[in-house]
Amino acid sequence: MSTPDFSSGCAYQRGQFVPISEASIPMTDWGFLRSDAAYDVVTVWEGSFFRLDAHLDRFFASCGRFRLDPGRSRAEVAHVLTECVRRSGLRHSYVEMIVTRGQPPWGSRDPRQAVNQFYAFAVPFVWIANEQQRERGLHVIVSEVQRIPPASVDPTAKNYHWNDLTMGLLGALDAGADSVLLRDARDNVVEGPGFNVFAVIDGTLVTPREGVLHGITRRTAIEVARSHGHAVKERELPLAELLAADEAFITSSGGGLMPVTRVNESTIADGKPGRITRQLAQTYWAWHQLPQFSTPVPY
Amino acid sequence: MSTPDFSSGCAYQRGQFVPISEASIPMTDWGFLRSDAAYDVVTVWEGSFFRLDAHLDRFFASCGRFRLDPGRSRAEVAHVLTECVRRSGLRHSYVEMIVTRGQPPWGSRDPRQAVNQFYAFAVPFVWIANEQQRERGLHVIVSEVQRIPPASVDPTAKNYHWNDLTMGLLGALDAGADSVLLRDARDNVVEGPGFNVFAVIDGTLVTPREGVLHGITRRTAIEVARSHGHAVKERELPLAELLAADEAFITSSGGGLMPVTRVNESTIADGKPGRITRQLAQTYWAWHQLPQFSTPVPY
Repeated sequence: MSTPDFSSGCAYQRGQFVPISEASIPMTDWGFLRSDAAYDVVTVWEGSFFRLDAHLDRFFASCGRFRLDPGRSRAEVAHVLTECVRRSGLRHSYVEMIVTRGQPPWGSRDPRQAVNQFYAFAVPFVWIANEQQRERGLHVIVSEVQRIPPASVDPTAKNYHWNDLTMGLLGALDAGADSVLLRDARDNVVEGPGFNVFAVIDGTLVTPREGVLHGITRRTAIEVARSHGHAVKERELPLAELLAADEAFITSSGGGLMPVTRVNESTIADGKPGRITRQLAQTYWAWHQLPQFSTPVPY
Repeated sequence: MSTPDFSSGCAYQRGQFVPISEASIPMTDWGFLRSDAAYDVVTVWEGSFFRLDAHLDRFFASCGRFRLDPGRSRAEVAHVLTECVRRSGLRHSYVEMIVTRGQPPWGSRDPRQAVNQFYAFAVPFVWIANEQQRERGLHVIVSEVQRIPPASVDPTAKNYHWNDLTMGLLGALDAGADSVLLRDARDNVVEGPGFNVFAVIDGTLVTPREGVLHGITRRTAIEVARSHGHAVKERELPLAELLAADEAFITSSGGGLMPVTRVNESTIADGKPGRITRQLAQTYWAWHQLPQFSTPVPY
């Protein structure tokens, strides 16, 4: 038997580690057939997890919110994630942990009777924006598709309900933009596919608090900003304020803080990545060296 | 090599027919990781598909709405479904057809670059309500969870965005009810997990039109009602009107027309399945014999 090739990524399923190309979930798992699942994504940068504790906290909180049980302790989940990365050998990795509802006995439609399933995988690091986009700043379009409201699905519990984001993204890509931002029913900008949004207004950072995922990169950006003496307000962000902002950026584990220089047909200020955005992005990456945020992978 | 055992169900994946217990989708398919998929469910009753054409129409419409391509003609999809049922030997079957986004090349986040995937499976017939529930009438609770609005996700294109329905269902089951109904933001009852709802008010059938899946069983119920001379109105259904209705029932491919006799703490009328509901349910099953609605499976 040949040694499995994990170099493109390693997944954990049903108690085993397999190459990512062989990883699967049962077609009948309600994690697929009802998108009944919670997940989280943590990154590995230069061989170390960044803020693993914060991601594990949120993962278990998301599971609790949706009444899903990974069936593993926090230490066991961390071990599986570490093992996925270690086997892949990836020094820069996008690492996902997932719990699905599983499936109740045939004929039952009671989610409480299902045996929940835990999955994980590590693949090469994923960038929300490519190098050119990060350099010149992103052009985003604000979609007419409304973000699923918190009254329907709790956005603070990380989930796969992305149809609104996907349909918005398709419209934005068709129009030649790089990505999309969605609004709530009251015309406030909330979030995009896989990222939070910030505006810099008169030296204060503004980022939505309601109707969004409380991203770990969002939290890091807030902490970085405060460490530099900038004020941060978590509040509603009306589209008009974003368009008139001095600077704008998005935050995601998939690339950190990335400047936004154009929204719809308007440039943000002079259309170049802002000074504060650049400063914060630099510190964001520097913080990857801090021991309290860093968990080395024992390759 | 032993002959595969399809008796518990047969699935179609990656060009092959496999026992349902072996059916899977790749962990990295966006159909799972972003719930980026469309589907439909048709039933087989006494060896024949019921209204297969209507389900195929809706499946292709759902695919078009979400820009998903099953990569197969209508006839080819019908052939795969038929083959799943034929191999399983099931005379009463729940048959699902699915298209997923698939996955774009690694690193790309552009859904347009993904190769969409087609899946299908046939399993034993699924009842939304068990025999006892159908006999005495269902007890449903109206949830505080709001149905995902059409401004976010188009409910007429059948999709797996069920977290609102699942969380509502969990609450209802915990409270001892049989199932759940969700409302929109204006306190109108819209739909439940896998079913539409009807109220009979002064001899007229009322069923919501906006914010709901246009179920094939819903359509059949409307046609059956009109064939009996009953008026049908597709309009908003405020919760207060449902509570004061003379009769209520739900519709689903998973069981046809099923009486609702209790909503929250209130009985509907005298708390017994209504006369019109029983009449329509009887005709609904009789229509399964109509040649124009029936496609025999060549076992």
